[in-house]
Amino acid sequence: MLAAVATLQLAAPTSEAWIEQATQHIDLILLDHANCEKKAAGNALSLLFRYPANGQLVEALSPLAREELQHFERVHRHLQRLGIPVKPLSAAPYASRLNQHLRRPEPEHLLDALLLAAIIEARSHERLGLLGIHAPEAELRQFYLWLTAAEERHLQLYLDLALAHFPAEQVQQRLDALLPIEAEILSTLYPEPRVHS
Amino acid sequence: MLAAVATLQLAAPTSEAWIEQATQHIDLILLDHANCEKKAAGNALSLLFRYPANGQLVEALSPLAREELQHFERVHRHLQRLGIPVKPLSAAPYASRLNQHLRRPEPEHLLDALLLAAIIEARSHERLGLLGIHAPEAELRQFYLWLTAAEERHLQLYLDLALAHFPAEQVQQRLDALLPIEAEILSTLYPEPRVHS
Repeated sequence: MLAAVATLQLAAPTSEAWIEQATQHIDLILLDHANCEKKAAGNALSLLFRYPANGQLVEALSPLAREELQHFERVHRHLQRLGIPVKPLSAAPYASRLNQHLRRPEPEHLLDALLLAAIIEARSHERLGLLGIHAPEAELRQFYLWLTAAEERHLQLYLDLALAHFPAEQVQQRLDALLPIEAEILSTLYPEPRVHS
Repeated sequence: MLAAVATLQLAAPTSEAWIEQATQHIDLILLDHANCEKKAAGNALSLLFRYPANGQLVEALSPLAREELQHFERVHRHLQRLGIPVKPLSAAPYASRLNQHLRRPEPEHLLDALLLAAIIEARSHERLGLLGIHAPEAELRQFYLWLTAAEERHLQLYLDLALAHFPAEQVQQRLDALLPIEAEILSTLYPEPRVHS
């Protein structure tokens, strides 16, 4: 069981339909991706505010938030390079549907927050990796291959934080509950092209 | 008038009473300062969320938010070095009282948000500079002298953003209104030792 929890396996791979949708609307994917990086920074920061006395969290999540912002700036530069005007974009329901499973009472809240963040990073790792293969431009493919390695580090960081705060059995059990939910949310392709459509 | 607005002059200097309070409770000042750096990052990030299509803001404020987080990490390390346990700390009423003067409708909201941020950075610049002189430990004094230079850059960044988006006369007029308010808020020393008590 410990071996299983040492990393995180998504319950279902991304469909070919998403790859087709994403590569045909790479402008919208880039716009949405910029928002995702900002939100990832915001999420790390809100954990810093919620658990100020937790030194381990603070030391891990403040540099993580900085890295997410750096990624945001890189996506922003690609938007400018490609002449894609920044416009408001509705979010896919992915994160809000996942957050319905975030339990409120502590310590469950911390466990869920860390594991949901790990799962989102895992899905981002997979999908940005697919963009690293399929994006319709060499410079973007290189960018996404570079980025997907970072996403893998981030998923591991959140998972390691969960394992540092909770018994491995409890982490595994919660992952076993959350991973199929995540796959179910993505089982119907959202009609708007998004990183998590 | 342009010369006056090129930088920002606080309406009143910090009292000696604050210096005495702060240096006698440097543990609480460090704890509060860590919160201030986090909040400064959060504030820059919330402007990124509010004005996603404003390239000039995005390019200035995302690196700024990263720098605030880096400062937060440095304060956090001083807390650890000095063995100061992190505990919840109520905020001084300074920021919330200033925010009462943040107008809601645009474009006034952007102007006020930028100028209030500039004013808070200006006051932080002044007070961290005072800690650079008066803090009761050489390593802390060095740290604060290093930090106060950064705060000055930040106040200039916010002021320059205001001047890039609004006529200099309008910026000056609003500063002339806000600066005395800020000094008035601090004219009575808040009984709890805080960066902005």
